[in-house]
Amino acid sequence: MSGLNALLDLAELPDAQVPQTTLNTARLSLMDWLMCGRAGVDEPVSEILRSMADHEGGAPQSAIFGGGRAPARMAALINGATSHALDYDDTHFAHVGHLSVGIYPAALAVGEAGNLSAEAVCAAFAIGGEAAIRVGLALGRAHYERGFHQTATAGAFGATIAAGRLMGLTRTQMRTAIGLCATRATGLRCQFGTMGKPYNAGIAAAAGVECAQLAKAGITAPDDGLFGQNGYLATHSDAPGDIAMVHDVWLLDEMKYKLHACCHGTHAMIEALKGHDIGSVRALHLRTNPRWLTVCDIKTPRSGLEVKFSYAWLAGMALRGDSTGSDRAYTTSLANDPDLATFAQCVKVSGDSALTDMQAAGEIQMQNGSIQAFAYDMATPIPISDLTISLRSKARALLGPTGDELCDALASLDGKMAHGLAAYLEHRA
Amino acid sequence: MSGLNALLDLAELPDAQVPQTTLNTARLSLMDWLMCGRAGVDEPVSEILRSMADHEGGAPQSAIFGGGRAPARMAALINGATSHALDYDDTHFAHVGHLSVGIYPAALAVGEAGNLSAEAVCAAFAIGGEAAIRVGLALGRAHYERGFHQTATAGAFGATIAAGRLMGLTRTQMRTAIGLCATRATGLRCQFGTMGKPYNAGIAAAAGVECAQLAKAGITAPDDGLFGQNGYLATHSDAPGDIAMVHDVWLLDEMKYKLHACCHGTHAMIEALKGHDIGSVRALHLRTNPRWLTVCDIKTPRSGLEVKFSYAWLAGMALRGDSTGSDRAYTTSLANDPDLATFAQCVKVSGDSALTDMQAAGEIQMQNGSIQAFAYDMATPIPISDLTISLRSKARALLGPTGDELCDALASLDGKMAHGLAAYLEHRA
Repeated sequence: MSGLNALLDLAELPDAQVPQTTLNTARLSLMDWLMCGRAGVDEPVSEILRSMADHEGGAPQSAIFGGGRAPARMAALINGATSHALDYDDTHFAHVGHLSVGIYPAALAVGEAGNLSAEAVCAAFAIGGEAAIRVGLALGRAHYERGFHQTATAGAFGATIAAGRLMGLTRTQMRTAIGLCATRATGLRCQFGTMGKPYNAGIAAAAGVECAQLAKAGITAPDDGLFGQNGYLATHSDAPGDIAMVHDVWLLDEMKYKLHACCHGTHAMIEALKGHDIGSVRALHLRTNPRWLTVCDIKTPRSGLEVKFSYAWLAGMALRGDSTGSDRAYTTSLANDPDLATFAQCVKVSGDSALTDMQAAGEIQMQNGSIQAFAYDMATPIPISDLTISLRSKARALLGPTGDELCDALASLDGKMAHGLAAYLEHRA
Repeated sequence: MSGLNALLDLAELPDAQVPQTTLNTARLSLMDWLMCGRAGVDEPVSEILRSMADHEGGAPQSAIFGGGRAPARMAALINGATSHALDYDDTHFAHVGHLSVGIYPAALAVGEAGNLSAEAVCAAFAIGGEAAIRVGLALGRAHYERGFHQTATAGAFGATIAAGRLMGLTRTQMRTAIGLCATRATGLRCQFGTMGKPYNAGIAAAAGVECAQLAKAGITAPDDGLFGQNGYLATHSDAPGDIAMVHDVWLLDEMKYKLHACCHGTHAMIEALKGHDIGSVRALHLRTNPRWLTVCDIKTPRSGLEVKFSYAWLAGMALRGDSTGSDRAYTTSLANDPDLATFAQCVKVSGDSALTDMQAAGEIQMQNGSIQAFAYDMATPIPISDLTISLRSKARALLGPTGDELCDALASLDGKMAHGLAAYLEHRA
């Protein structure tokens, strides 16, 4: 039961023992999560879930994106789906999924209902997020390849731990909550491309609140539903790994933020092309990890959505200095842009298995005949000050002046309560 | 997509085309489900879930076992867990699980909220139950052996179809509801022996209501989340089978009802020993399917719970004419009964792989030296009139005179509405 004990140790770590860098990451994810949620309130899946909440009614325990309140479990469901509706939220490549959308909705809903501080909610996210990464790693790539969606599955365990911590579960109750979560956590990749994908984030968050509440109320569940016989790992992965808990390394710090509202496989290229000007470029050769070739190498996009998956179009946009940060930029008229269409003919894309799926490299042939190499690796850590600036630009692209207000308000959490954070959910963009 | 189309055809079959024998089975299951649920209201898992409902509040759409009302989705959760709390509800051996506890709570909650007839609820159970059996068969024994619990997993699809049918989903909406259920349905066997087992029935029922409601509201989901690529079968079974939909054969008719409040592996023996008297028996040799030897062959039970898993004790009880139908009969003093302890020394149990897990056989050596063979096969159909009498005895054993009143009230559903049925949930035993 060493894996479970390591998770339980993590779950009961005092806030003060979470490293400051990790708390900073949790703060950035909070900002990113809030802007994505507010930008997602008018998406159909968000409206459908808010209608379900209206239909059910119940105690106004926790705020929901777009205004109104609902029982904590329902708020977690709505907020998880709403914040993942645009698929623009944070990503963790080792976890193989999105962390904030499954865990923050649970932590905030419970933190608000329990009148806790905003900093406690952030610390609970850091710990729940780290736990979800470790569970995601133990489930491994085999779990994802079998068809499961770590955002939902490993995410539910993170949400359970974050919620349970904020509810003050004892170690025994936390063990029960995790054991119960084993029979509640699920979510499939076959939902991708449908509203079922953001719904997956919501069910992870709601499962976290539910399992923590039931454990607190005295339900029983297996001693080790995660690593034990016939437990979650055995049933949900063909090659489950160990849970390497190394307390002085926090994998949460490797969190990545989407700064461009297009496929994550194109982001390294966009970053690499910054500082070049389209007028001085004669041709461009991009090398990328081969797995992206079937994902985001659409040669002639026919819609705004297809532009998001087109290296050739996005290369032109990046070199031209177009804004790539707002979902609204990706229109049909962009797909019909004659200058981008012309430039696309000068773009060549090759697979290169020496590159990771976070890297891009290549050469630009300049109008003057010279060759310039370019490269970018998303794994390279970015200073927190730079990330803060980038997220502010993203907020502005998504929400206009409201985005700046949101970032200003989140600049310090000192003395803020969870219900103070929750107030930022209630207004529309 | 032939498997899915077969399920969709089944889902939209008019009530009048469900065979009368199958509707009779659905009626028996309704009676069995109601008595199990009412007998389970004071179990801890039932109280814990009712507390959660009190804490959340919400629209009083549907009745809950033990009194009170809740939103339909919550009522389904509570009623599923409450009716499975004693583990005394119906079993379907081909499905590999319990049907009524996952599906009736969804059908009744939705039927009541929609002011539908009791007969429509029964027909929806028949169809949802048949669908769950077919999904359970397609998932197969490999699914169960991997560690999943068909009651919860295949049950959620049955609950979705029953609820969706009662909500009047179009064929397209039903397809979506099933596709969404693929990302919601789960439940593990590692919960057995804890409150997580009855909870599994509740989550199946609640998932059914939720997926049907969201599909009706316009959510999107994969076209074929069940049989399609990376769908439920591919992710949840190592050897998924086909879904053999044969419309003139209703597998629901093979439903079995527990008439003894002990392990199902002992029931064939108890039935086989009826009519014999303990006073005339010198020794007894029981043969049973080998899989039961590790389950219910406790030689010297130390508690009432262990008596439920003891062939030797139960053989003596059956021959002595003890009542085996009430959970309350299985006490510690029964485990200490000196006459049963003496008789147990004359009982020999052997594994016999020629017997199915529904069969028992053996020989009794009489006091006069003669040998009498005995045998029973639970697969043998029992006339509905006999089953009705047996279930009335079970109701009386569980609920006392209230059990008779319940059976009288359910003798005819003519003109009854779903909310009339729901009224039977509200009173305690």
